[in-house]
Formats: sequence, C-alpha cells, structure tokens
Amino acid sequence: MGHVSNLSTEKLRSMNGHAAIGHVRYSTTGSSVFSNVQPLFANLPGGKIAVAHNGNLTNSKEIHDRLERTGSIFQTSNDSETILHLLAQPGYRDPKNRLQKALGELEGAFSFVFLNPDALYAARDWHGYRPLTLGKLEDSWVVASETTAYDLIRAKYVREIEPGEVLRIDKDGLTSSRIESEDPGKRAHCIFEHVYFARPDSLVFEKLVYNSRLESGKCLAREAPVDADIVVPVPDSGVVSAIGYSRESGLPLEMGFIRNHYIGRTFILPDQSDREAKVRLKLNVVPRILKGKRVVVVDDSIIRGNTSRSRVKFLRDAGAKEIHVRIACPPTRFPCYYGIDFPDPEQLIAHTSSIDEICRVIGADSLAYLSEDGLLDAVGGTRNTFCTACFSGNYAAKPKGGITKNQLE
Amino acid sequence: MGHVSNLSTEKLRSMNGHAAIGHVRYSTTGSSVFSNVQPLFANLPGGKIAVAHNGNLTNSKEIHDRLERTGSIFQTSNDSETILHLLAQPGYRDPKNRLQKALGELEGAFSFVFLNPDALYAARDWHGYRPLTLGKLEDSWVVASETTAYDLIRAKYVREIEPGEVLRIDKDGLTSSRIESEDPGKRAHCIFEHVYFARPDSLVFEKLVYNSRLESGKCLAREAPVDADIVVPVPDSGVVSAIGYSRESGLPLEMGFIRNHYIGRTFILPDQSDREAKVRLKLNVVPRILKGKRVVVVDDSIIRGNTSRSRVKFLRDAGAKEIHVRIACPPTRFPCYYGIDFPDPEQLIAHTSSIDEICRVIGADSLAYLSEDGLLDAVGGTRNTFCTACFSGNYAAKPKGGITKNQLE
Amino acid sequence: MGHVSNLSTEKLRSMNGHAAIGHVRYSTTGSSVFSNVQPLFANLPGGKIAVAHNGNLTNSKEIHDRLERTGSIFQTSNDSETILHLLAQPGYRDPKNRLQKALGELEGAFSFVFLNPDALYAARDWHGYRPLTLGKLEDSWVVASETTAYDLIRAKYVREIEPGEVLRIDKDGLTSSRIESEDPGKRAHCIFEHVYFARPDSLVFEKLVYNSRLESGKCLAREAPVDADIVVPVPDSGVVSAIGYSRESGLPLEMGFIRNHYIGRTFILPDQSDREAKVRLKLNVVPRILKGKRVVVVDDSIIRGNTSRSRVKFLRDAGAKEIHVRIACPPTRFPCYYGIDFPDPEQLIAHTSSIDEICRVIGADSLAYLSEDGLLDAVGGTRNTFCTACFSGNYAAKPKGGITKNQLE
Amino acid sequence: MGHVSNLSTEKLRSMNGHAAIGHVRYSTTGSSVFSNVQPLFANLPGGKIAVAHNGNLTNSKEIHDRLERTGSIFQTSNDSETILHLLAQPGYRDPKNRLQKALGELEGAFSFVFLNPDALYAARDWHGYRPLTLGKLEDSWVVASETTAYDLIRAKYVREIEPGEVLRIDKDGLTSSRIESEDPGKRAHCIFEHVYFARPDSLVFEKLVYNSRLESGKCLAREAPVDADIVVPVPDSGVVSAIGYSRESGLPLEMGFIRNHYIGRTFILPDQSDREAKVRLKLNVVPRILKGKRVVVVDDSIIRGNTSRSRVKFLRDAGAKEIHVRIACPPTRFPCYYGIDFPDPEQLIAHTSSIDEICRVIGADSLAYLSEDGLLDAVGGTRNTFCTACFSGNYAAKPKGGITKNQLE
Repeated sequence: MGHVSNLSTEKLRSMNGHAAIGHVRYSTTGSSVFSNVQPLFANLPGGKIAVAHNGNLTNSKEIHDRLERTGSIFQTSNDSETILHLLAQPGYRDPKNRLQKALGELEGAFSFVFLNPDALYAARDWHGYRPLTLGKLEDSWVVASETTAYDLIRAKYVREIEPGEVLRIDKDGLTSSRIESEDPGKRAHCIFEHVYFARPDSLVFEKLVYNSRLESGKCLAREAPVDADIVVPVPDSGVVSAIGYSRESGLPLEMGFIRNHYIGRTFILPDQSDREAKVRLKLNVVPRILKGKRVVVVDDSIIRGNTSRSRVKFLRDAGAKEIHVRIACPPTRFPCYYGIDFPDPEQLIAHTSSIDEICRVIGADSLAYLSEDGLLDAVGGTRNTFCTACFSGNYAAKPKGGITKNQLE
Repeated sequence: MGHVSNLSTEKLRSMNGHAAIGHVRYSTTGSSVFSNVQPLFANLPGGKIAVAHNGNLTNSKEIHDRLERTGSIFQTSNDSETILHLLAQPGYRDPKNRLQKALGELEGAFSFVFLNPDALYAARDWHGYRPLTLGKLEDSWVVASETTAYDLIRAKYVREIEPGEVLRIDKDGLTSSRIESEDPGKRAHCIFEHVYFARPDSLVFEKLVYNSRLESGKCLAREAPVDADIVVPVPDSGVVSAIGYSRESGLPLEMGFIRNHYIGRTFILPDQSDREAKVRLKLNVVPRILKGKRVVVVDDSIIRGNTSRSRVKFLRDAGAKEIHVRIACPPTRFPCYYGIDFPDPEQLIAHTSSIDEICRVIGADSLAYLSEDGLLDAVGGTRNTFCTACFSGNYAAKPKGGITKNQLE
Repeated sequence: MGHVSNLSTEKLRSMNGHAAIGHVRYSTTGSSVFSNVQPLFANLPGGKIAVAHNGNLTNSKEIHDRLERTGSIFQTSNDSETILHLLAQPGYRDPKNRLQKALGELEGAFSFVFLNPDALYAARDWHGYRPLTLGKLEDSWVVASETTAYDLIRAKYVREIEPGEVLRIDKDGLTSSRIESEDPGKRAHCIFEHVYFARPDSLVFEKLVYNSRLESGKCLAREAPVDADIVVPVPDSGVVSAIGYSRESGLPLEMGFIRNHYIGRTFILPDQSDREAKVRLKLNVVPRILKGKRVVVVDDSIIRGNTSRSRVKFLRDAGAKEIHVRIACPPTRFPCYYGIDFPDPEQLIAHTSSIDEICRVIGADSLAYLSEDGLLDAVGGTRNTFCTACFSGNYAAKPKGGITKNQLE
Repeated sequence: MGHVSNLSTEKLRSMNGHAAIGHVRYSTTGSSVFSNVQPLFANLPGGKIAVAHNGNLTNSKEIHDRLERTGSIFQTSNDSETILHLLAQPGYRDPKNRLQKALGELEGAFSFVFLNPDALYAARDWHGYRPLTLGKLEDSWVVASETTAYDLIRAKYVREIEPGEVLRIDKDGLTSSRIESEDPGKRAHCIFEHVYFARPDSLVFEKLVYNSRLESGKCLAREAPVDADIVVPVPDSGVVSAIGYSRESGLPLEMGFIRNHYIGRTFILPDQSDREAKVRLKLNVVPRILKGKRVVVVDDSIIRGNTSRSRVKFLRDAGAKEIHVRIACPPTRFPCYYGIDFPDPEQLIAHTSSIDEICRVIGADSLAYLSEDGLLDAVGGTRNTFCTACFSGNYAAKPKGGITKNQLE
C-alpha cells in the first residue's frame, strides 16, 4: 500500500530471490484497499504463483459465479483473482498448457505477468488492448507496460509481447506459445494510451507517444485554426500537443498554467463542494501573461467538463480576452469496458451534450475537438488496429450479456 | 496485528454494527503473521461470515487436501480456515443445518464463534477440550473463553456452551442445537487450563481456577513435604499453589522472586545463547531473603527444564542453602494435539528423563511433582471428564493417520 | 518519548560512545511532553553536558527569575533546567569546582547525573532526600537510583552516593568531592520510597525494601489486630505487607484481587466519570474466595480515598461479610515539596478528615493506619535520618518564601 | 519534520488560535535535524515569541560568542536563534522598539516573521536581499516570500515589505516602522531568485519571474545564436528560458527531456558513485526526438558541472549530432554569504575553469552563458538594485572579519 516513492531501498534490498513483480495500481479512491493490492498470490496444488494484471476482464462475473457454485472462496473484489481460481480447478493441472488453456477462457483486456519459482510468464489478450513489452538488461529479461521503465534502469527495449502470446521466461531463455482460443483476427489497441495514459517518452504499440501528441496538436491546428495571440498548454499531458499546435499555427507558446508540484491534500478547503479550489491546487494561472490576450488552450481530453469549466474561469479571471479550447482527441462519448476508468456515460459530458452545448457549459469562446481520423493519423493506426470505441461506440467485441460497469466492480 | 494494549479507543469507536468478534492469538514467534490473524473472514455464496477458533483440528490436513483437489485455494497456514472452505462447498448451502453439518466433519479441539450479518454462533466440540462460555450484559449476550472477560465489562456469567452444542444468538434470543456427529459420550476438558493457561479468577469448566491451584498446592505439600525454612513461588502462575503449599505445610511464604513488569525485549544481551539472561529479565531474585535458607520453590510445570535450571542457579547464587523444587502438576511427557503449544516430545524433559535425572539437570536438592490423582482431586474432575493425555498419554481420540505437529503447521 | 518497552535493541546498538544516561520520567499526564524529556542537554562554553535529575528543587523559580533578568532563555517547564543555566553563567567556568559551586546554590531534593565527553558525575543533596547509588559491572561503573537495575545487568552494588557528595567518574576512576554549601547535619531520606515507590527487591538507603514492608505488615498486625477470616493484599505494592500481616496474625493470605496485566486504556468506558471502571480495570476481584468472609485488606497508603472506596465496594459486592482496611503507613496529611506527586492538600483525604470519617467515606467496617514510630522501626530509621513530613508536617528545611506546588510547575 | 505533503488536514484543523507561522526549510542533508526546524520559539520575559527566518546572517557567530560569554545557552546550530537571544537581553525589554533595535544589530540577509500573542511582525534587512511580501485575504493579512502562496489561497498581493521595514500587524491593522540601523542607501536583491529559486508565476522584487526568464532566453538567443535544429529545455527551471530562446531564434522547441515525477530515492543504484544514474532518475531523455539533430540545450545555471556533463552524455547517447549548451545566467564564480547554498568555491566549476574548459569538461560542442548586463536587462534591474556577487564578486557589504561558510555553520 502507499506511493512508490515511499518504498525504501532497505525494503527492496531485504528481498531475496532472482525474480520479482512490481505493480502500481491505478485506482480510484474507493478501491484502494489492502485486499486489492497486486500482485495477487496463491499457493496452488501446482505450486506457488503470483500474478499482476493490467486491463479489465469482461466475463469475470460469469466465471466468478460458476466457480463459487463449486466451492471456491473469492478473497477480493478484483477481477484479476479469477485467473487464479481457474488455475486451481482440477482441469488445469497440466503444467504444459494450463496457462494457455485458462487464459483462453477469459474475455476482455488483459496484459498479465505470472511468476512461479521456476519461470516468469507474460501474456496478452488477442486484441492487444493494453501494451506489454519485453526488455533486456545485461543477461536478464524485463517485462513492462511502458518502455520508459527500461530507460530508468538502462535496459533495452526488445519487442512487444504479441497479442495472443504467452511468453515463458526461465533459466533456459524464452519460449513463446499462444493462448488456446481463436484469434479474432483484429487488433484493438487502446488509443487513449497515446492520448492520455502513457508517458510521452514511451514507445506504445511501437510508436513514440511524444510524436503522436505532437502530430495530434499539428493536426488540431489544421482542423481547428483560430485567430489568437498565444497557445497555452494544460500541463502536463497537454504540453506536447500544444507545442504541435503552436508550431503548425505559428502562434507563440506560453506557459500560462504552472503546475504545483508539492501540494498534497492538506490544503483542501473545508467546503469540499468547492471544485475550483481543487483544480486551482493542481495548476496555478499566471495573470500577467494572459491579461488582454486571445488564448488557445490545448488539453488532451474533456471527461465531465467540470475541470475545463474551472480552468476557463481562471483564464477569464486572469484577464484573457478570448478563450478558445482545443482538445487533442475526439469527444469521449462511450464507456470503456477494457480498463479506462471513465465515469458512467451519464456523467460523460460528450455523451449527453453537443459540442456547442459543451462550449457554453465550460464558458469558452470556442471549442473544437480533433477528428477520429485526425487522431488515427497522428498515432499511425487504423480502425482495424486501434480501439476507438470510447469515441465511436464501435467495440471490437461486445461483452456478453450486456455487462455493466457495476457488475465489473 | 500487535498487542491488545495498542488498540485505540478511537479505532474501537469508529467500528459500526451491533456485533463483533475480538480475538487474541496465542502464537509462537514464527506464525505471528498477518495472514494468520483471526477472525478469518469470507464472502460465501450463503453470505458474509467471520470465524474465530480456539483449539486445534486434527483432521484439517486431510480436509485441506481433499478440497484443494476440487479447486479450493487456501489463503493461510491456519487450520481454522478449513471450516470456511467446508461451508463454501455445494453440500453446505442449507442455512438450517450447514454449521451443524460442517462442524460434524471436524475432529480435534474447537471452540468456535461465527458471525454473520444476522446472528452470532458459538460452538464447541463434543469432548469439550477448550472452554467456551455464555455471558449476559444488560440485554446483550457475550461469548468468551474465560469468565474474567465478563468481570471486566461487568457482564454476568450464564453458563458454559455445552460440548457438542451450536448456540445461535440473534435478535430473537438463543437457539440451541447439536453438531451432526456422534456424541463420544466422554468429555476431555484440558486440565492444563487449570494448571497454567487460565487466570486464577476465571471459572473454567465450572470450577474456579484459584481454588484448583490452592488445592493442588495443599495436596503437593501432603504428597511431597520437605523440611525447609520458606516457600517461594515462581510468579505469577505459581503464586496460588505456593500459598496452598505454605498453608498446608506451615512454612512461611516469601516472595523470593520479583517480577519485572516493564521489561521488553530491549535489554536482551547480544549473546542470545545466554538463556539465563532471558530468565533473569522476567524475574529478579532477592538475595537478602534467601541467604542461608532452605527453600521450597513452587512452580506450575517444567517443560524443557532450561528455565527451571536457571532459576535454581539464581537461588543458589543468592545464597539459598537447600533448594527443593515442587511442581503443581505431574510430569508433562506427551505431546498435545489439541492446542497447547508444547515442544516436540524430544524436547520435553519429562519425556526423556526420569524425575531423578531432571532433579540433577536443574540442580535442585530435591524435586517432586504432584500426582495425576492429586491434580484431578484439586480440579474436582475424573479421567472421564478431563484430558490428562500430556501426563498419561491416554488420548480421548487418537488423531487418524498418525498426525504430527509439523503436519498441523 | 514513550515506554521503555518500546525501545528497540537496534536503536540502542546504533548509539556510539563509552557512556550514556537513560532516564525514565515519572510524570503526571500534563507534563509528558517532548520538551520535558530527560536527560537535558546543552552546549555550554565549557563543553557539551547532559543532565538527568531525580527530585524537586524548591528554589528553582527564584533562580529562573534571576537568570531570565540577565538574558537567559528557558526552554522547558522543568526545574532541572535551572542547573544548566547556572553552569552557563560567567561565574561558573572553572572546571575544578563549577559543579560543586552551582549545586551549592540549589535547595530541595536532587540526585543528579551529569555526563560530558570526559566524565560522568553523580551528585546528591546534603539531606539525601532521594536515593542514588554506585554499582560496578566488570571494569565499568554504573550509577542508579534503585539497586534492582544492577541485578538486571548483573552489576554489583558498591555503595550509596553520599549526601552532599559529587562523585566524578572518568578513565582514571573515582574522585569524590563535596557540594559547596553547608552540611545541615541532618539527613531526610524519603520514607515513602520504602512505603510505595521503590521495588521490594531494591536496597534503598541501605535497607531492603522487602524487609521494610514485611516488618511494617507485622507491626500493623500488632498495632491493629482484627478478628477476621482472611488477609487480602492490594497488588502489587500491598503484597509484602500483607504477607507480614498474615504471618504475625496467623490469618491465612488469599489473593482476593487479581491484577489485570495487559489492559491498556482501550476499554475505558465512554462515561469517564465512572471511577469504579478504572479501578476495576486494574484489579479484578474474586467473589468465590471472598463470599461470606471477614476480610482484612492490606494496602500501602490512602491518598484521595476514591480508589479505596471503590475497592471496598467491590469486596462488598463480591459477598465479603466484614471489611477491615489496614494501611501500612501513617495518614498522609501534608504536601511533599521534594518529588512525590501528591495532590493538593485539599484533595488528601487525611488532610481534611479524621480516621473515623475516612472509614465511613470508604465504607469499611474498620480502618487503621500504621503509626509513624511503627513505620520508622520497620525501615530501621529515626526522625533524624528520614523525612516523614508528609505524615507529620515536620519538614527538614521549609522552602523559602512559602513556595507552593503551582510555583514549582 | 518531513514534507509539506505529509501534513494532514486533521493536524492543521486541530490547531487553535488566530495567527500562525508555517515554514518550509530549504536544507542540505546534514542540517535537516529536529533542532533546526523553524519557526523557533522562546518564552521570553517580554512574552512568548516565535520566529521564522529566510536568509543568512553574517555576524551571527560574533553575536553568539558575545552572548555565550554572559551566560546564554544556544540550542541550535541555526543562525536564526541569534535574534531570540538578543531579544532576551536586558537592553531589549522596551516593547516599543525592541525588535527595531535588535534587528539593527544584525548583518547579512534576513526576511523575518515574528509572532507573539498580540501581533505578527514582518521585517526585512536594508539591502532587501531576500523577498518578503504582504497579501490580504478578506479581512486577514498574510505575509509570504513568494506571491504564488497568495494565488493558492486566493489572497491578493498588496506590496513588498520594504527594505529596512518592520511591519506590525495586529487587530488594529498595520503599523510600519524602520530598523534602527543606517540605511546603506543601496539595495541588493538576490538576482538568483529570478534565475533559479522562485517559481515562474511569482512576482519577486515586483517583477514576474516568468517574464525575467523569457527575456533572459531571448537575450541569450541574441547574444549566443547557433545554427541548430531544435531547442531542448532542461525541465523545469529551464523551460521558460528555452521558450524565449526558441521564439527569438525561430528554432522549434522540443521536450527532449521528460521529468520523472514519482521517482524517490528508492531506485538509487548500489554503486552510489554512479552520478549518471541519479541524473537519469530525475530526467529521461527521448532518443527518437534527438537522433541526428543539432540540439540547443537551455539550462538555468551550471554549478559543479557534473550534472551538465551527464546530460550532455545522455543527449550524445541518444544520437544528437551536435550539442550546444546555453546557460540563462552568467558563470557562478563566487560564494554567496546570504542564503544560497552554493558549494565551496573550489567546487564551483566556473571559479576554477574558463568557459572553454567547462565546455570541454561537460563534453558539449559549444557553451555560452548570458552576460551580466543581459541578465540585469531581463530582470529589469541594475547593479545598484540587485546583488550579482555570485557572478561578479562585488558584494554590497563584505562580511566583517573574513567570514567563511564554515564559520556560519
């Protein structure tokens, strides 16, 4: 539990062994409880096994109910526990193909690492929703979601774990096999990794995120130009797109928002309904730069709209003459079943409102989003390789039985 | 985790609900880990349930192996987890008799409390190895091992949970039923509860422990008199027996050992093989009382013999002229399968040595133990109501398949 | 800060150096703050110095005010800080006699240890109010208030630091000198150390506390006999006196109160005005021993009377037929200026009430105190060697200017 | 002790009173000890007083020695304690001018806030080395070093505390007076606040830091142009200057370094001499942006040169074809006596090496610094209003007696 920065070197050094799993959970407040910490661990008849999971299974409730009927006790509210219970079943005892067979029962998005005393396994669903990559550090192998992890430890990026692949890493090296389920023949990489999640210096789905964002900013400048004085990014995720917009439009870039690095929760004011205070705590606005200016604000996305409304208000209070909001992705209108923690569709402002209405709600003088084609160009992909369902509603595989977000939790 | 005295009132008050289980684990160092903390909890198909267990199951390994073969994942090294997995099996879904039926599969010693949102259950094995009692505090019911718990909260002792009983306590009051296995027709209350475990002010198996110890001391004075100057108890568990010995023998009682209340582990000397230091840290000897005296030392029991040897040495160093050790129970020669954490029989000094040899090993001038009949008289019981197997080797029910201590852990 | 038992061996081992001061503060709730932790430390012109103090200075306010007028800043509310500020004054720079001269300015009770990089100093006021002793552990010297400290670490008791002595301990051994103030020619050892404070296995003012208490119990039986069935001690401080009373009277000793070792503050009931609950948490009463009995209760002292009243009530509730309270010291009627934390005289029940009245207040059938002569006989002292001012009001040296408790704090 | 982000809202809310001082210490590792925590507090004859200090006194050792000779005990190694001891002296008891008089004895840089039960005082030395400003939040006054503090709590900036001013704030409002020492008639604002220390969104010495840095970057582009492909800032302090350089030169800005926000000390590799690892942990380099490019790297300053050397190496390893380092301030050649924690002059690379030599040491293809005049233009000041001693060696007031850094500590 707790932040990675609280990890002590002493604790790390006190750990023995030749292999390890580290996992940083991207959690919403409610589910940040001890029992949901990963990696999960079980002492199965076939031996000890640990697992960490990135993604979201869409048939975990179905499997959970089936196994509970035969006597399994689930310890967590975590869909990742499902794979451990599957592996504990009598039908999955053959060490040769137990993982391949069990993974074949899962639907949805999964990038898994498993560790047992003999081997490390990395596995990725056939659609390849989430990234998973292989790196090498001297004689050792490393598996990570984002390639920046390799930069930090000076390992080298080798390749992606392929969609549908189960890669076994042991003292004899690498052994690659396939998940025992049918290849849908279509990839569905999450385009939001490039829009928001991944670091700009990561190579995700074999493309540098920085370049995707720079291109998306340039494309946005072409698709939605505006007669203005300065381009102001929303730090940190909007900075690269704003550079692209500035460069393509010729408008000067100014850091009109300054991020407050060391502010914790301490200073949250008593009246917690004051959303503006929370936004202000994260970003400070610089009036002397903005006063009297026509400002293009470049941000990565608009989810609920509240934060954007606060920011536009700050710019207005700081004296900006015009405020033109430019978003480096299309409107997010549909829920994600594969691991992005969007709110209920009713709370997604683009699900319920038109772009004009959103513009009015956030108080901007104009608002424009990047087109889906523009974004696909920027990331260098197509509708057959990327999942753009949160923009388009076109899911690669609809979850069976009308699964809802609540059921998943 | 941690000591009861570290519990904060704030934490207790922050807990909501109308019923609760508290559990203090009597653990050896090795197993004091988080996953063994009780109560255990599971979210079963029949609803949430928590359980705390006093005692030791002798067929838990057998059940563990059977359930693992059908897909159950065990989380702890705790034999108490067995009952939760039994309750999760498809055959135990009928709320009317699931507990009675599942408990009927267990062998060994168990005093259980279960808590679900509707009711609290208290259950005790047919032999009644461990105590379990019912109390009342105004309109509320309380269940506890030792009756001193009632004194502290000013509740009233009502009765024992009977051997083989499953007592359900809910908003409609008490409902008593029986475990669905055959009554062996013989009780086997643990006599060591009176010798050492329980507090003197507890009523255990319906007899005051203080009186058992006072009688055992008197009986010991009759069975093993000695021509001496003073009677010195080993605090705290030997004090009441020593009063009995003093009163029956007419020899004056002197507190030749003083307990060090506030000494923690801090002062353990670097050379950890120095067992004497550890004993000294617990008890201080008072030379000016002992010098030139013929001393009767009354203790509750001798397990390995090391501690006794150190104490005799301290008395000798303090100037005692003669040292006569009197033990208020018979020699402990056999392992306990039912919850007393005796060491392996090879380490039980009375398993491997005669009384004369023990006397030589500990360096006393004489050594005598209370007889088994004497102890049974003192506790007011018989071989048909008490388990004296640790003295006699006569177990009420031999664990099947030659179970060993290691298997249990 | 915190309990000695929370000290970790690692912390102790991480401390370097060849000498150290440990100090356990006997504090009332209010003053248990960081700034009052001892030893105090200062970086004086003459070098670094640390000091720990047992006792109470009666002219510290006067010195405090004087030094503050010339520019000294006091950091604590602790009277012990006075000596550091005295040593910092320009007149106390001669290393040969600075301590002797500065200590000569102090009035009241003090047993001090000082530590600088070169030497350890132990010093005691001319009256010898508080104990201070010298011990030896192999080639090292140890200084402690109570001699039980030596038993724990296997050091040997050597002698008392004499009243008025300043003992310097350095690599060349011991050097003894005297405080530069007049010897009042009269000692005033605190008799309450024998009554209550010290451990029974300590040698205090060269007499074993155990023997003082045993004698006081015997004397009490002679001075205040009673026709009863059993003698019940109030643990722990009343146990030895009760053995004495039992032995002299021939009445059997019974442990009618059992101490609750592991109870912290947790279980204090919401209604904090319920004093009985607090007393009950410390001691449990054993009804089955007391029912129908005429009981002599032996306690060390009665301060406010509330605790005694609760205990008498418990015995009555437990079925005792008669309750005769016997106190192993005279009534405590007067304030202590020398380190015993008595409440204001108005709260001392013996200050405001006669013995008959106290008996009625606490609800006993009879009440008797040991006489002052009886106590002096028990401790083997006289009015010229012991301070009995809390009983008699005869102070060895009245604090100047009508000092009050509040001024001291 | 600890990070501001560890402060809990509960702790803040539990503090009573109508005024408070918060202080974040900019400390080097060695001096981050409890006794150096600010605000300092003292219970003086004139009443309780707390003080926090930004800056560095150059005659504190002299005053320390003088007061120690008359009996004062210093508790900390902190030069800020000096003012408290001055205020405790008999000559400073007149509440009307004690602060003004005591501050008049101090030399060096100081921005002080004092708090007593009646009033808050803000005071600043006559040279005005460090910033100190006044803000207003509804009916309350606020004092802070940097004006961003006001933005966070939505207070309004009012004005600077003037050099030599002592501003008293109490329930009757503001009362301004002067320090009782001669106005040197020359200001010496620390120019390094604009170069490095202050946040870009702060108004320091009445000029927006963002604008100073933007101007310094533009000026640097004019003074030291280079034929290159991209401009890469060293985040965060070099970002605004790099925007200025990019805008003036027309070269595109690229974020070739990405900051690692959540990396703590955990991952510091065992071989601590590996300086590169530490630098890498703070910034990640993005090879795909840099490969084959001629790069202008804009940084705020070079102190020892090690970090710059590592960064140049990273860029080279990432495939940059040419690396031109541009520094937005002049070479730092001289020690600072007024609060900037520069290393010893021997470790300042510009103290010992020429610019050409530095260029070779860090491995760049070219290196240029901003001129002192260029920097003064950028901050809008002159040699009569700003202290540029770390560049020029021209100190506004040489510390008496050849004070050295070591003496100050």
